[in-house]
Amino acid sequence: MAIETASANRSHGGVQGVYKHASAATGTEMTFSVFVPDHAEGAKLPVLWYLSGLTCTHANVTEKGEFRAACAEHGVIFVAPDTSPRGEGVPDDAEGAYDFGLGAGFYVDATEQPWAKHYRMRSYIEQELPALIAAEFPMADMGRQGITGHSMGGHGALTIALRNPGRFASVSAFAPIVAPSQVPWGQKALPLYLGGDRAAWREYDSVALIEDGARLPGLLVDQGAADNFLEGQLKPELLAAACKAAGIPLTLRIRPGYDHSYYFISSFMADHVAWHAERLKA
Amino acid sequence: MAIETASANRSHGGVQGVYKHASAATGTEMTFSVFVPDHAEGAKLPVLWYLSGLTCTHANVTEKGEFRAACAEHGVIFVAPDTSPRGEGVPDDAEGAYDFGLGAGFYVDATEQPWAKHYRMRSYIEQELPALIAAEFPMADMGRQGITGHSMGGHGALTIALRNPGRFASVSAFAPIVAPSQVPWGQKALPLYLGGDRAAWREYDSVALIEDGARLPGLLVDQGAADNFLEGQLKPELLAAACKAAGIPLTLRIRPGYDHSYYFISSFMADHVAWHAERLKA
Repeated sequence: MAIETASANRSHGGVQGVYKHASAATGTEMTFSVFVPDHAEGAKLPVLWYLSGLTCTHANVTEKGEFRAACAEHGVIFVAPDTSPRGEGVPDDAEGAYDFGLGAGFYVDATEQPWAKHYRMRSYIEQELPALIAAEFPMADMGRQGITGHSMGGHGALTIALRNPGRFASVSAFAPIVAPSQVPWGQKALPLYLGGDRAAWREYDSVALIEDGARLPGLLVDQGAADNFLEGQLKPELLAAACKAAGIPLTLRIRPGYDHSYYFISSFMADHVAWHAERLKA
Repeated sequence: MAIETASANRSHGGVQGVYKHASAATGTEMTFSVFVPDHAEGAKLPVLWYLSGLTCTHANVTEKGEFRAACAEHGVIFVAPDTSPRGEGVPDDAEGAYDFGLGAGFYVDATEQPWAKHYRMRSYIEQELPALIAAEFPMADMGRQGITGHSMGGHGALTIALRNPGRFASVSAFAPIVAPSQVPWGQKALPLYLGGDRAAWREYDSVALIEDGARLPGLLVDQGAADNFLEGQLKPELLAAACKAAGIPLTLRIRPGYDHSYYFISSFMADHVAWHAERLKA
């Protein structure tokens, strides 16, 4: 494994880097960003994963997420991967729609053609990238990991945490897709990536995973009340019901006036970083 | 006067708006952004102007500047104008260079053709836009204004404050161009906009304005030590010498490792907002 540094900028006392590498999981070059706060020589810092939403790359949160001040304050490494494979030979939605294909990997390992060859974001985020971070960032304490994400990336964060019990000491999300099997975004993407058997969708559906017995140590969710996707695609009430039935402690904060944009995410990012940091203390 | 709301997003408890209007000064449509923090009905809030650098529009700082948390904390309105006229009929650099023409208005009222018709950013920022803000944002206390900016916008902030004594209770800059007459950026732009008579350049040159007797109440400047433009274009030592000779209290902070990007600006934005807020208290 080897990574190439695309850029490295001093920021908030630390270094905001953007890196590229040849991914075995996706068979493509992949780009991700890592913020490493200032730290003592030899110190080990907890790692907070942030998975992005539809249409995004690593760049959106890296530029607009306003996480660095809080990560510097709390001594937390922030890792932001891309949302799909990209590049020559990677198929896209036939009409170039924003909600399937490029920028819309839904954090699945696709089983259907032509997607199965490259669209393996589950393996990439669950296995390959953590190993790469552990190898290339010696200050990263992989024994202390948290995960969060926005919209499709909230779906990714929740499903990955639910499928990997014990890996993440803290889990949160901004406006997550909580039950893709029950909403149009998922009902388009899941059959294309995974086929028509709805049983195969359940490990990529947070509400279904909880119904099937998966658990989280706790969960913080912020959701804008003026989010255009709230009623049609996000349905936090389904998550609340599933968590209640399963006894998962959920803090769900509905934020009046806030929409689905980075203006919303950045408003509560420092809260989320502090919440994770508290749970990731050495 | 009338403005059109291009977008309005709830953020950090306030509203981040982007607005368009027909400018009499430039003869074009102009776009600017305003963040208004949450405030009590009838309250009047101080106004902090932020002038952007080469290639930027209002959008760069609005997306990447990380000013909203601090402006919300201190109750400060943040106004970010564009850096040049734009649109049909507005001439640009013949080769489309980044450092002249579109995105590079240098906050001058051009006197030379073909620039003189539209490139009137001095009148726009000094006269027209403040009147528009006063008319359209009733919570803006135009008796309490501060100004800051980055690079070419630092040049704009300093020269506008120097030419308008008493208007700004607080003045700061990030990596400003302090003496355009003495560096390549200015030596290209000033003769094209203003003609070859260097005497005409002096009111658009902070060091020259200070030499000619203009004063500031005080000045905060942050400058990255790893800024590629430090030695060739920015030369903060010229500002330091002029301020020292004139008795202007200057706090100049050279920041090891920081470059010219928004990763630098955003790192010290909260400091600057707090510094302005302290001086803009009711």
